Amino acid sequence: MKVMDAQLAVTEDDLRQILKDSPFARIYDFRLDFVASGECRLRMPFQEALERPDGIVSGPALMAAADVAMWLAIITRLGKDALTAPTEMATAFLSSARQEDIICAAKVVRLGRSRIYGVAECRNDQGKLIAHHTINYIRRNRG
Amino acid sequence: MKVMDAQLAVTEDDLRQILKDSPFARIYDFRLDFVASGECRLRMPFQEALERPDGIVSGPALMAAADVAMWLAIITRLGKDALTAPTEMATAFLSSARQEDIICAAKVVRLGRSRIYGVAECRNDQGKLIAHHTINYIRRNRG
Amino acid sequence: MKVMDAQLAVTEDDLRQILKDSPFARIYDFRLDFVASGECRLRMPFQEALERPDGIVSGPALMAAADVAMWLAIITRLGKDALTAPTEMATAFLSSARQEDIICAAKVVRLGRSRIYGVAECRNDQGKLIAHHTINYIRRNRG
Amino acid sequence: MKVMDAQLAVTEDDLRQILKDSPFARIYDFRLDFVASGECRLRMPFQEALERPDGIVSGPALMAAADVAMWLAIITRLGKDALTAPTEMATAFLSSARQEDIICAAKVVRLGRSRIYGVAECRNDQGKLIAHHTINYIRRNRG
Repeated sequence: MKVMDAQLAVTEDDLRQILKDSPFARIYDFRLDFVASGECRLRMPFQEALERPDGIVSGPALMAAADVAMWLAIITRLGKDALTAPTEMATAFLSSARQEDIICAAKVVRLGRSRIYGVAECRNDQGKLIAHHTINYIRRNRG
Repeated sequence: MKVMDAQLAVTEDDLRQILKDSPFARIYDFRLDFVASGECRLRMPFQEALERPDGIVSGPALMAAADVAMWLAIITRLGKDALTAPTEMATAFLSSARQEDIICAAKVVRLGRSRIYGVAECRNDQGKLIAHHTINYIRRNRG
Repeated sequence: MKVMDAQLAVTEDDLRQILKDSPFARIYDFRLDFVASGECRLRMPFQEALERPDGIVSGPALMAAADVAMWLAIITRLGKDALTAPTEMATAFLSSARQEDIICAAKVVRLGRSRIYGVAECRNDQGKLIAHHTINYIRRNRG
Repeated sequence: MKVMDAQLAVTEDDLRQILKDSPFARIYDFRLDFVASGECRLRMPFQEALERPDGIVSGPALMAAADVAMWLAIITRLGKDALTAPTEMATAFLSSARQEDIICAAKVVRLGRSRIYGVAECRNDQGKLIAHHTINYIRRNRG
């Protein structure tokens, strides 16, 4: 993994720990591939458990990658104790991936006081765009 | 499970077999709860593996339920050998579910010659709306 | 117009006045067709100014109808001075309308303390579904 | 207007003629600002007719800009006689614009045999991101 920005609100180890502490994320065995301020790229290694019956990597697996990559991208800006929650996610499934890893890159596009908006892309190792996602979060304030 | 419509293009057992044959769906242990023509309701039993670190059922788990429920809803109309693929999915996360089953009901809203559009809702057992989804599919023709 | 619910936070005349006071809405000459608590149905009369070059009623016209119908549906619950703003809108274009009025029915699905979610449908006079919309709003608090 | 790419499937004049020939687009008085292969940027001059009652440029006006910019971006690739139709559009409203022009830049992200996917951004003249859009089209074949 390459870290581009010394100004992150978390360390690499923090992000890896978050992945470990997330039961639903463990299904996918995500690997941190790149982190910068407001950006995170994850590798989702191929495993048969992600396949549809026709051998294509399932939509829910791609959406899980986008969800987690965006969550970590936000954490690079707001820190690991930030209280945020996704409110909407839209995905366009553009190509099929078969028996191959998925690289998902998420980027915070706008970090507002109450809302966060970002975009994520799932690609294969040849760079083919598999899915494109937009994600909205709200920020919650501590009571 | 209750079947409302004798006119289904598949049997209940077909649908259960499809769930068994789908590697990614096995993660969620979906149970068929209701089937009618163009409709499918699944129960996703609670399991800790679906949780986020804060104990809320994860967004990807809800999206997986919607994806699979819609897929089965389409199959009730087109049969189990239909060639279809999701092209877009949009989800609004409306409430949180904690340590509880999710009931996801999907319905085909429009079945066109080349496109299919449907809506799905995830609720808890008290009927609280947890997430609302819209899903687009394309129909592929055999070569 | 038929009013179903005496419990509206506004009168019909309030809603008509809002339409008149909205510069962008005047383009479409919307007519109130039905109002109930959390629901609003508008008629958008056909006019050539809404057409694409191929004679189909344009997507932006359908989205304007959904935007305004949902806004009025929210106002039936929160009153005309409510501070709200749309945050996301997703539209599926399902059929074409040609030289015909559009009837757009919007309904509040969830009215939360900070967020509002609703669904709208555009149909022609024969009931054919032309477009389906989901809309998110945030509620703003007065300073 | 600046043209970056000699390889366009249309001329600038073709695109301007298309805008003139589109009844619904005339409402917005769009100006071609930039064209390249698979890209189009339009300026939507401020006019009071686009305002909401609170003086903010309306969501439907932003969505119209994105719809038209994407349509022209596709035409730069496929030519002016291409048979295409939008199937979905999702918009995130990120900031407010008041009494100012909107610059909308659309880009084809994937041009497939049967589907087209693109992204559009509405900004003000200071570059503030006002809205972000994703748009799906299908390609129709001549009979």
